[in-house]
Amino acid sequence: MPSIDVCFTPALLHLYDVRAKVVVIIDIFRASSSICYGFENGALEIIPVSTIEQCESFNGNDYLLAAERDGAVVEGFHFGNSPYSYTAEKVSGQKIVLTTTNGTYAIEQAAGAAEIVIGSFLNLSALCDWLLNDGRDVILLCAGWKNLFNIEDTVFAGAVISKLFHSFNLDGDSAVGALDLFRLYELKLEAIIEKSSHSRRMKQLGIEKDALFCLQTDICKQVPIMKNGILTVVLSTINS
Amino acid sequence: MPSIDVCFTPALLHLYDVRAKVVVIIDIFRASSSICYGFENGALEIIPVSTIEQCESFNGNDYLLAAERDGAVVEGFHFGNSPYSYTAEKVSGQKIVLTTTNGTYAIEQAAGAAEIVIGSFLNLSALCDWLLNDGRDVILLCAGWKNLFNIEDTVFAGAVISKLFHSFNLDGDSAVGALDLFRLYELKLEAIIEKSSHSRRMKQLGIEKDALFCLQTDICKQVPIMKNGILTVVLSTINS
Repeated sequence: MPSIDVCFTPALLHLYDVRAKVVVIIDIFRASSSICYGFENGALEIIPVSTIEQCESFNGNDYLLAAERDGAVVEGFHFGNSPYSYTAEKVSGQKIVLTTTNGTYAIEQAAGAAEIVIGSFLNLSALCDWLLNDGRDVILLCAGWKNLFNIEDTVFAGAVISKLFHSFNLDGDSAVGALDLFRLYELKLEAIIEKSSHSRRMKQLGIEKDALFCLQTDICKQVPIMKNGILTVVLSTINS
Repeated sequence: MPSIDVCFTPALLHLYDVRAKVVVIIDIFRASSSICYGFENGALEIIPVSTIEQCESFNGNDYLLAAERDGAVVEGFHFGNSPYSYTAEKVSGQKIVLTTTNGTYAIEQAAGAAEIVIGSFLNLSALCDWLLNDGRDVILLCAGWKNLFNIEDTVFAGAVISKLFHSFNLDGDSAVGALDLFRLYELKLEAIIEKSSHSRRMKQLGIEKDALFCLQTDICKQVPIMKNGILTVVLSTINS
């Protein structure tokens, strides 16, 4: 039986051997949610980059350039990582270059993994179907906030485990803790918004509706997957 | 109002500014529990050291030498970190040098803190009284397991927060998560033993009775405190 474990922040990923494993990138508020939503709405490619400079180096005629830092759109960019920027009108048929405070950093840290995919509540079931069918060991990598633990990414990791624990061995205490926290919140997911320090930051920026959006389950049917530095999508093997 | 936060592993402590703060070292199974129990039973000093070589460098006539690695007593040493080795018959009036897999490493990592004290379920109320009276900001540092998150240290951190949150600001999501997990387990603390990967390791070593011992609450009235590399005790200001 394959194993599943949770890494609470990219700062701890060096303690995990990811070479033969699938790493799921989780940045619920908001990068991984917006990436899933963008593909659902017809984006062709999303290229995650670490720095604002790398993002700027792409041609704005060929790519939508998206940059977020500390929750806000960086000045001079098309948009940041609000899911409301990833509607069909804006992203259908487009290629996007994206840099965010935590999510794209987490993707970069996972570079040594056998496979990198993107998870969010928006594509929870499609992701779990994909992981189940894939059958390799899984590390659920929470992007956290500036390398610190956060509650929303952890609760989502627990949601994945709640769907998969009959078919995967739980590897460590962080998987147990994430599952426990999901069980505590599953009937009232929006309670996370009051608890999460990142939600409070979003409230200050007037974007708390983004948080509610990101807690919707299964409105996306696709699993973004990384190939040669570019995210594209695979249809869930069960749903396809 | 002072703040309280939880750092889930020593590997993340560099993300916290500890210079003006009290750091509470938490290694429930078993170092911080055994340290508290040792002082309750009359130990004069406990000197935590990182390596087995440092431990060996002390004179065995003047000090009890205690070394644990991966849950077992290191060959050639008086004892490791089972609380049953820290009874009055064994430690009263003694000075002890101690090295463990996780606990003494955590103490070393916290070296820059304003104050370092030791917490466990055994001295929970005395610790909380002391922190409340002290009034400085607090970081609850979970020793974890080889720099990974563990469930028992986290639940204890939550227990401290449950006693202090009216008088301290909760700083981050890890404090919220720890409090949530404590609330989940507080009426059935022994359930941690089934969940914790470290408990499973202890079971394999035939020392699961140690885990049950370490989940007793308030059998110790003292707070071990670090001064110049040496742990001694202060009586709780409330209980003294």
